[in-house]
Amino acid sequence: MLECALPFLPDDAVVMAVVDPGVGTTRRPIAVAREGRVFVGPDNGLLSALVSDDLRGALAPQGGALLLPRGEVEAREIAAHEFRLPDVSHTFHGRDIFAPAVAHLAAGLDYRELGPPITRIQALPPFRGANAGNECLDGRVIHVDHFGNLITTIREGQIVEPSEVEVAGHIVSTRVQTFAEAPPGTPCCYVDSSGFLAIAVNQGSAERVLGVERGEPVRVRPL
Amino acid sequence: MLECALPFLPDDAVVMAVVDPGVGTTRRPIAVAREGRVFVGPDNGLLSALVSDDLRGALAPQGGALLLPRGEVEAREIAAHEFRLPDVSHTFHGRDIFAPAVAHLAAGLDYRELGPPITRIQALPPFRGANAGNECLDGRVIHVDHFGNLITTIREGQIVEPSEVEVAGHIVSTRVQTFAEAPPGTPCCYVDSSGFLAIAVNQGSAERVLGVERGEPVRVRPL
Amino acid sequence: MLECALPFLPDDAVVMAVVDPGVGTTRRPIAVAREGRVFVGPDNGLLSALVSDDLRGALAPQGGALLLPRGEVEAREIAAHEFRLPDVSHTFHGRDIFAPAVAHLAAGLDYRELGPPITRIQALPPFRGANAGNECLDGRVIHVDHFGNLITTIREGQIVEPSEVEVAGHIVSTRVQTFAEAPPGTPCCYVDSSGFLAIAVNQGSAERVLGVERGEPVRVRPL
Repeated sequence: MLECALPFLPDDAVVMAVVDPGVGTTRRPIAVAREGRVFVGPDNGLLSALVSDDLRGALAPQGGALLLPRGEVEAREIAAHEFRLPDVSHTFHGRDIFAPAVAHLAAGLDYRELGPPITRIQALPPFRGANAGNECLDGRVIHVDHFGNLITTIREGQIVEPSEVEVAGHIVSTRVQTFAEAPPGTPCCYVDSSGFLAIAVNQGSAERVLGVERGEPVRVRPL
Repeated sequence: MLECALPFLPDDAVVMAVVDPGVGTTRRPIAVAREGRVFVGPDNGLLSALVSDDLRGALAPQGGALLLPRGEVEAREIAAHEFRLPDVSHTFHGRDIFAPAVAHLAAGLDYRELGPPITRIQALPPFRGANAGNECLDGRVIHVDHFGNLITTIREGQIVEPSEVEVAGHIVSTRVQTFAEAPPGTPCCYVDSSGFLAIAVNQGSAERVLGVERGEPVRVRPL
Repeated sequence: MLECALPFLPDDAVVMAVVDPGVGTTRRPIAVAREGRVFVGPDNGLLSALVSDDLRGALAPQGGALLLPRGEVEAREIAAHEFRLPDVSHTFHGRDIFAPAVAHLAAGLDYRELGPPITRIQALPPFRGANAGNECLDGRVIHVDHFGNLITTIREGQIVEPSEVEVAGHIVSTRVQTFAEAPPGTPCCYVDSSGFLAIAVNQGSAERVLGVERGEPVRVRPL
């Protein structure tokens, strides 16, 4: 979601992004600056969305520590105690560390005041389909949206056409540009508005019709 | 919801309303102006809420194309490319067409700059109970709110008192002005804060207790 | 939630808080002022969060009418008709009475203009564990958060360590400071970011794993 939002953020946006199952452990709070924008959150891979997918694929194909490409992306550890709450809880750094930091940034603080520079951040593996041989691609469902549409990790540009998609034992071979091209109730594939292969049911929920949850493996196979 | 919000909007409100199962098809993006306010959305009936229910009943009793009453309501097709994103996706016009249009309007753009005038928009049938003979009224559940209250299409002024309501095989004859007048757990009818007949369960969920979903038929019968 | 938000509100905050099953009955709409902040809502116990838990325990240990401590907390009945909507519905005072009042307050109105002073408001019992003998404490689940964490009425300072927690027939004896200290899937106790005893499942939902809903009794027992 963070990666998909990037093209639409104001040039001087200050962003707080927190998905933080490791809150209160040794993972660092960090601020990442890129092209005038600053992003604040835990150093657990979330903010690696700021490093382009191609670059992540080259620098940290399996995820893990990623050496920041110089000049393009800079990062700081949020260490200065004057920019957090006086009492920091063990379980709510969103309130006690991250929100105060972004409030100070939004009020004009230079992000470099937050703490010492760091050269590596944790990275997630790139979001793209993996080559599975025979021109097949393997990915997974990375997001189920409000409507029950299944968004996958597979990118538009990777797919050889024509193709079909297999997910949870179902073969989805109806390919559309938008929902209304499929008969109501029929599962179909489309490229979503951020360029990811997705599976929908027109006027229905692919999540419910196909019985699929986030994380489900997906395979694309040429026809 | 749009109709219910109308009395409470600022005089110069700019409103984006998007319920758009036909996104990416030939249905037009439109802007509808009424009394200084401008509403932006798909031309699929949603914005016919701007035409009063009585007038809709006279001009398009079954829904469909509605000739806009002159002077009262004006509409434009959103056609100008300078007020949308450079790349328009097939499945997210809320982001790519509607939101940029309302942003421009909120920043001062005259809505007539958005595109050519149109004289007809798509209309939904009016929201009111239909005469079912013997002073009975037929309607349906049009909304289930956060609490599980069932809001119907039947209007306060249509109901002959005393009366009872039948929904999904249940007869609801307890009539109250507010929830706490009914014993906890008991289904009751009331007129909601927008003038629609509704069914609730005090300190409970009518949706769950009566097993009813949006769309369920409702009949009002005089006692 | 209101009590937990208090330490983080701006000094001159105007707050609307509405949980109002008795909407449209004789319970009064009130405004409560404390240290420059004003809180608006129904007089049904909700705004007693403005009176500290210790004081509530002393003045109204079982809840009910509470004589406001002089000088510290002041209250008014919202009676003036010029600060509400012209037509007041029976079921939506949030829209018709409370929101207009807070809008006027936020625009600069002195809260004393809202109506006559009152010296008593309805109070909830204090949120704390009750002495159950043998150094045991009895409380209940007062909130289930977005993650399925179970927040109880028992306060950090009340607990004798080491201890275990019993809820819905389960004994939870793993005590942690933050989620990641517990093995994934294992129920654990912790003190939440507002000082309440809480029960979580690391990377899971305690609500689902333990089958517990809001209101469930909880007992803390020393080991």
